[in-house]
Formats: sequence, structure tokens, C-alpha cells
Amino acid sequence: MLWEAVFITMVYQMAGDARHPAMGARMQTESVIAELSALLGERLSTAGAVRAEHGRNETYYPDTPPDAVAFPETTKEVSALLRICHAAGVPVTAYGAASSLEGQHLAVQGGISLDMRRMNRVLSVHPEDLNAVVQPGLTRIALNEALRATGMFFPVDPGADASLGGMAATRASGTTAVHYGTMRENVLALQAVMADGTVIRTGSAARKSSTGYDLTHLLIGSEGTLGILTELTLRLQGIPETIAAATCRFASVEDAVNCVIATIQSGVPMARIELVDEMMVKGFNAYADAGLPEMPHLFLEFHGGPAAVAEQTAAFEAIAAEFGAEGWRAADTVEGRNALWSLRHKAHYASAALARGKRIWPTDVCVPISALAEAVLQAQRDARALGLTCTIVGHVGDGNFHCAVCVDPADAEEMARSHRFTHALADTALRLGGTVSGEHGIGLGKQDFMDAEHGPALGWMRAVKRAFDPKGILNPGKLLPPEA
Amino acid sequence: MLWEAVFITMVYQMAGDARHPAMGARMQTESVIAELSALLGERLSTAGAVRAEHGRNETYYPDTPPDAVAFPETTKEVSALLRICHAAGVPVTAYGAASSLEGQHLAVQGGISLDMRRMNRVLSVHPEDLNAVVQPGLTRIALNEALRATGMFFPVDPGADASLGGMAATRASGTTAVHYGTMRENVLALQAVMADGTVIRTGSAARKSSTGYDLTHLLIGSEGTLGILTELTLRLQGIPETIAAATCRFASVEDAVNCVIATIQSGVPMARIELVDEMMVKGFNAYADAGLPEMPHLFLEFHGGPAAVAEQTAAFEAIAAEFGAEGWRAADTVEGRNALWSLRHKAHYASAALARGKRIWPTDVCVPISALAEAVLQAQRDARALGLTCTIVGHVGDGNFHCAVCVDPADAEEMARSHRFTHALADTALRLGGTVSGEHGIGLGKQDFMDAEHGPALGWMRAVKRAFDPKGILNPGKLLPPEA
Repeated sequence: MLWEAVFITMVYQMAGDARHPAMGARMQTESVIAELSALLGERLSTAGAVRAEHGRNETYYPDTPPDAVAFPETTKEVSALLRICHAAGVPVTAYGAASSLEGQHLAVQGGISLDMRRMNRVLSVHPEDLNAVVQPGLTRIALNEALRATGMFFPVDPGADASLGGMAATRASGTTAVHYGTMRENVLALQAVMADGTVIRTGSAARKSSTGYDLTHLLIGSEGTLGILTELTLRLQGIPETIAAATCRFASVEDAVNCVIATIQSGVPMARIELVDEMMVKGFNAYADAGLPEMPHLFLEFHGGPAAVAEQTAAFEAIAAEFGAEGWRAADTVEGRNALWSLRHKAHYASAALARGKRIWPTDVCVPISALAEAVLQAQRDARALGLTCTIVGHVGDGNFHCAVCVDPADAEEMARSHRFTHALADTALRLGGTVSGEHGIGLGKQDFMDAEHGPALGWMRAVKRAFDPKGILNPGKLLPPEA
Repeated sequence: MLWEAVFITMVYQMAGDARHPAMGARMQTESVIAELSALLGERLSTAGAVRAEHGRNETYYPDTPPDAVAFPETTKEVSALLRICHAAGVPVTAYGAASSLEGQHLAVQGGISLDMRRMNRVLSVHPEDLNAVVQPGLTRIALNEALRATGMFFPVDPGADASLGGMAATRASGTTAVHYGTMRENVLALQAVMADGTVIRTGSAARKSSTGYDLTHLLIGSEGTLGILTELTLRLQGIPETIAAATCRFASVEDAVNCVIATIQSGVPMARIELVDEMMVKGFNAYADAGLPEMPHLFLEFHGGPAAVAEQTAAFEAIAAEFGAEGWRAADTVEGRNALWSLRHKAHYASAALARGKRIWPTDVCVPISALAEAVLQAQRDARALGLTCTIVGHVGDGNFHCAVCVDPADAEEMARSHRFTHALADTALRLGGTVSGEHGIGLGKQDFMDAEHGPALGWMRAVKRAFDPKGILNPGKLLPPEA
């Protein structure tokens, strides 16, 4: 079909643009690279292998190496770099753990890949205030390791060991968001370098504030298109006295989801409540020999004092029984819990295990919880109708779920069917009053839906972009669709 | 002192500007009033009594009646009104319950007061999704009355029966924010009319989203300077199975605050934890015959299942004992709880009772919790040194506290001392890494601190304002300080 061919062509062209810019742009870029070399020395690289590494991604987007890769070590260097690139109009795309799922870190219009991984320190930890100040290149697992002796942890857990700057930039969330919130609720303050090199601070270590426009939340989720994050003040949580995990299974996705709705409504403060559909269970069995019956499951976790956890568990079990839950398996030990969540976190590879040699086209949507069963069932029907192998896991307490479609990027016809599937899923989410992404973001892949989801508000997003980055040097080609 | 005289003059001049605009502006305003009369009929009023009502406020700002008051009933009317005012460059200032504490609803540059109280309907309630769609003129108490039969409630409670639109516009919070969050965490989606009359929708009924710039949070806290809110989708909570309240007292503010810090750190999920200083207790005794020993108190509430609440209460009591808490009084019945919180909500009038015939100059700041004792003690010392009667109550779980200074607005010298006090308090908050307002906002009174608190970020706030409201018609004279 024409529009699918156009899409595939477009994605490849975005890569092509970076490699064959107009002659004038190329000269600009070369002179910027010379200036940046003077600034950063060996920490500015144009080596083919380094550029190639920064052009790769975990999903189906074609490789798009940048013109050069910068490895800044200080905010001052980031600021100097942006001043240079701003003057010359050369694109700058931030790069962290490269775990983004909509190509956010790919320099699709060439220019500089700004690798933040050397800015990966914990700058300070404040146990009395339950916060920590970190650099953006630090990963969430490294942060939690650094916090081990403090009795605190950082709860946002998107599965991948993402960089915290990248997590903020894409408004990431994950399995614990139902209880602890997403990056939106867990970033107190930011330091950012704006397009022209100005360094700003937004927010403070105070828990709340009513003093002016909320630039912190404007930067969170902006995918590096409004500013480069160089420091984050993150809320921490005390490690709960008691943590209990469990799984159970249901005869249908509908029963599982209706159990979730009843649980959320009843106010049981679930720490995690994850749906795993029958196809995903098949993947876990194939990849990790999980030995689970191939039926929809819920993976659960409860946090609190021992009495509270016992009470919550009993309340959930009573609700689950009403929806026909079976096979209750408690994971009371640390090892049991770790095994359970490590299985859940292998969803990506377990999905791939269902179709060896293929790659995963991951996508996610989020709907009002009342529409969740309908959305999941529609996704399963669409995948079957299109002949696609597709697993579903979901942060169902938030109404958010992921589909992982097994694809061969070289098979244009299968790619077209996958594209049709993800677009139908996004349409379903919008029809049900939801959003085309709960946590992966827009990046390259979902710009087509910005108008349908936001309508006239899109004009105000463009106004923000023009005001903050009039030359369009920050991660160009992402988030906002090209103007008609 | 010069700067204090300048301040007092400035506040009165802001009122004066509205009354004696330049001749050209006056003609513009008159022609706009004629157009709006054609649009709204009798719902556009220039009657002196109506204008006077809309020029009053609860605190010390001088009366500033608008040129006319509009009473729209639909979003379409708000849009048409803004198109007219935008074309003529006439100011529009939204008006709700007039309970804002920094003069946010005062039309200090004249023009139209947009009274939203006729847009006060609950448009829909969605129990399965725990949300409700409401109009901005609805008050929080009216919403909770409408929800009574549903088993759900809206938790944000700033004390006053504020309008929900106003609460969103000023990023209000209150006693339950420590558990349920502020308006920032409890507004899922908005409909807003922008300066030029365009109607936009931001967010959705889905719990989270990663699709583009967070315009919802940009509008929350913008004090009507970026757009007029015409519809809000609010998160609701299930009414907890068990609610228990209590009070206890401490030998010093320091002991009380250190008890709070230890409690928050230990992860006890407090639903409310409020500090009441010895002067405030004196006010409660004078105003409501509360019969409390004149020592610092904590007012507490616990929400959850019965076992969880018992466990939390015991955990708190054990921590409180370490800090020398005495006089534990549980309020287990609904009546007991209501009496306790009704007393707390009378803080404004109880403060006034300490100095009959005076008005209250309310102010608030928010600091990292570790700095809370220092900030509160400094405020008490400053008030004493300046010879001011001042009570302190605080949402101390968030590090946020209020001072209510008793003033006679006709006593310029006392007003100058009060001004010195509130400015010293704001300086203290900034010195301790906090913010000059946790929940009252900037409005007229705290613009002086915007540069000190935000530094270069203030430039980006101005950029947002210019992009959204280039003619400066939305609540001019608020939030952003005049450009130098």
C-alpha cells in the first residue's frame, strides 16, 4: 500500500539525510567539528566505529550515524558545545543508554551526538530529604546500587537500565508507576542547557512550589528538543519494611483486567500489578523455561508494613477470586521476587524468542482503565488478523500496555503489516480516550498521531519549540511532525 | 525605608492604573464592553456593586475593581470573549471563589473580570476510572458533595472552599498533599481557551502519557496568565476503609519537626501531618475555646485498611515518643475528626482573633524538610524581633508552612514591618534551598523574588508568556515581574 511504502521510505530517508547533507551544511558541520575538537580534544570523535555505535538502536529503525560524537564531562562543556552548534545551526542529539524505543537518540539530521555517559556521577544524597542529585548519564541500576547502604531506593523502573537523563527526557515510567508515579512525579528539579548554551535551573529540593511556570515538567518528556538535561534532583523512597510478590492466572484477559479495575477502585495500594498475556507466557516458557500455564497472568507486588501487606494481599486475593483467579503463587523471599521480576524484565528477549532471528518492534499505548480490556482484546485480534506474532505485557494499574511485534526489517511486507498494526493500536487508544504512548514517547515513530491526539494544542507545542529553539538544532526531526 | 515606601506605593499604583487608564485605552475598553454586552446581554455588568465585589480580596491588597464583569456560561462564550478582548488588547482576569491569597483574581490593569462561577457543573463522573470532568467554577466542597454517593472523593484541600479552576491555576495543595499530592498530581487533563480565543485540550483520561510537551502542567500554576481553564479532568480517590485522626504536643517546634522528618523517612504513609505552633494554638483557644496547652502540636491523619491504620498509628506513636510527644488524643469518630480539621481550617480567623480589628497578611514558603525546623524557628524569631503577631501552621510533611501576620492596612509603619517579615521569610526559604511559595503562588506579592529563585530560567518563562500571549492580555501584572 502506498502510505506504508511512503513510511518505510521516510524512515530510510531520515537516515539518508544525515549522510548526504547539502554542501553548505556539510561545511558548517566540518567547521563545528574543528571547533569542538579544540574544546574537547579526544573527547570529540569522528571515528567510524564510534559514529556507528551511536547510530544504532534496539528496535527497527535503520542505523543513522551522526557526523561526530562528543563526550562532555561538565555542564560548562555542554554549554560551550551548544553555543558553538547554535551559532552554526548544527543539530545536537543527546545520547544516554540508547535504550529509547522510538529512536529518540538517533541523529537523523546528522550533526553531533552528545554522549552523556561520562556525566554519570551521584553528586549528593540527602537522606533527611529523601532525594539525590545526579548527573544525567547515570543509569537507574547504578543509582540504586549507590543507594544500597542508605535504606532508600529510586522507584521508577522501565525495565531497561536506562540513563536517568534519558528517562526524564522521555517521561519514562514502568512497573512501579501505579504506586510511585512516573518520572513526572519523581523529578524535583533540573539543570538544563538551553539551545543557545544558557544554563538554567528549574524547581528546587522543596517538595512542591507555586512560583511560576513549571519548566521542570515542560522539559520532562521533551525528548531533548527543548534543552539538554545536565543535572537531576530525584525523589527517593524508603525501602518498604515488607515486600511481597505473587502471580496468579485467569481464564481470559477480560477477567484479569476486570480484576485490576476492581482492585484499583477498592483502593488497595498495589506497588506493581502487571498483565502478561498468553502469548507472552509462551515467550517466557520458550526463553526461560518458566513452566507457566499458557493463560493470562497478573504479576503483583505489595509494599508496606507487615500488617498492611498482609491486609492488602488478602484484599487482593478476595477480589481476584471473584474473577476466577487460579494458581496463586506467592514469592515471599528476596530470591523468589527477584526471579519473578527478572522474568518480567526479560519480556523483550522472551518476545524475540518466539520468532528466532527477528527483531522486536515495540509499541505502547495507555487508555483509561475502564477501556483496558477492550484495548487489549482489540490488539490481540488485530495481531491475529494481520498474521503477526505479538506479545502483550502491561502496567495495567495505569491502563498502559506494550505490544512487542516480531519483525524482519528486511521483509517490507511484514514491516508494512506491523506498521498497520501499531497504527491501528494507536487509533484504538485514541478512540477509547487514551494516548498513543504511555511511556515510549513520540520520537520518530508516532509523529503521525500528534495532530489526532492533541488537535489545536499541537500549535501551542510548536510555539514552545519556536520560543526555546528558534533554529531547531535540538534533536531535530523528533516529537513534532513536520509542518504541512 | 525607601524600598518599603516604594512597595506600598506600587501596590496602590497597581490599583490606580486600573482606575485611570490612558484615554485611548479607555475608549478601547468601552468599545469592548459594548461588544461583550451584545454577546452576553445582562451577563456583562458594569454595575458599581458588581465591580466592587470583584475588586475585593481576603488579604491586604487594596480594592481594585475591574472595568466590567463577564459571567460566561460556556466555553464558546469564553472563546468569543477572548477573541474580542484580544483584538482590542483589553485585559482579562479570571475570577473564581476569590480565595486566592496573592491577589491573583484582581484586575490590577483594569479590563474584564471573567467570573467563572456560572460554569460550575460536574460534567461527568467515571467511577471505574476514578476521575471526574468538571467546570472550573465548581468548588472543591461542592464536588465532594456531588461525589458523596460514589465512595470516592477529591483529596486536594487548601482549607478555603476554592474553585477548582482557581486551584489548578495557582497549583494549590493543602493538608493532604503529603499523601495525595497537589493539583499538579491530581489534574489529568484540561480544556483551556488561549489568549486569541483558540480552544485547546491537553492531557487525557489516561493516567499517564509520553506524547509531547506537557501543556497541562504548564497551565497548572500559570495563574491565568497563559490561558483560561474551562474544563478539568480530576483524579479521584476511593474513600479509605479506615480513617483515624489524632493530635499530640511537643516541648519545642524543633522536636515536632524532627518527629515529622523521622516519620517521613521511615516511610509511614501519613495522610495528613500538620504543625500548629504555640501562637496558633493561642489563636485556636481564643477563637474556638479549643482548650489546648499553648505548645507546638501536630495534627495527624492516617488512611488505609484497619490493620494498616493501626500499624501506621503505632509506628508514628513510637517515633513521636522518641521526640518527647505528650498528650496523645485520638479522634476515632467522624465527629471527632471533623472537629479537629474544622479547627485547623479556622486558622485564618483564629489568627485574626489574636488582634481584633486587624486583617491577615498570609504568606507561605516551602523548604527541603531537613531545613524545616530552622526555617520555622527563624520565622518565629523574625516576627518577635519585628514586634508582629504571627501564627504558623504547616503542611510539614511537605516542608511547607504558612505565616499569618496580623496587620492594620492603614498603619503604614506596621505594613512596612510586615513586608520586611515576609521578605525575610522568602529570603530564608531561598537560602535553605527552598521556594518562596509552596501553594499561594506569586500573584502581586512575590514578583520581587522571581529572579532570585529562578535566575536565568525566568527568561524562559518570559519566552513562554510571549509565545502564548504576545499582547499580554491575560491577567497582566501578575506572576512575572516587570522587565527591567
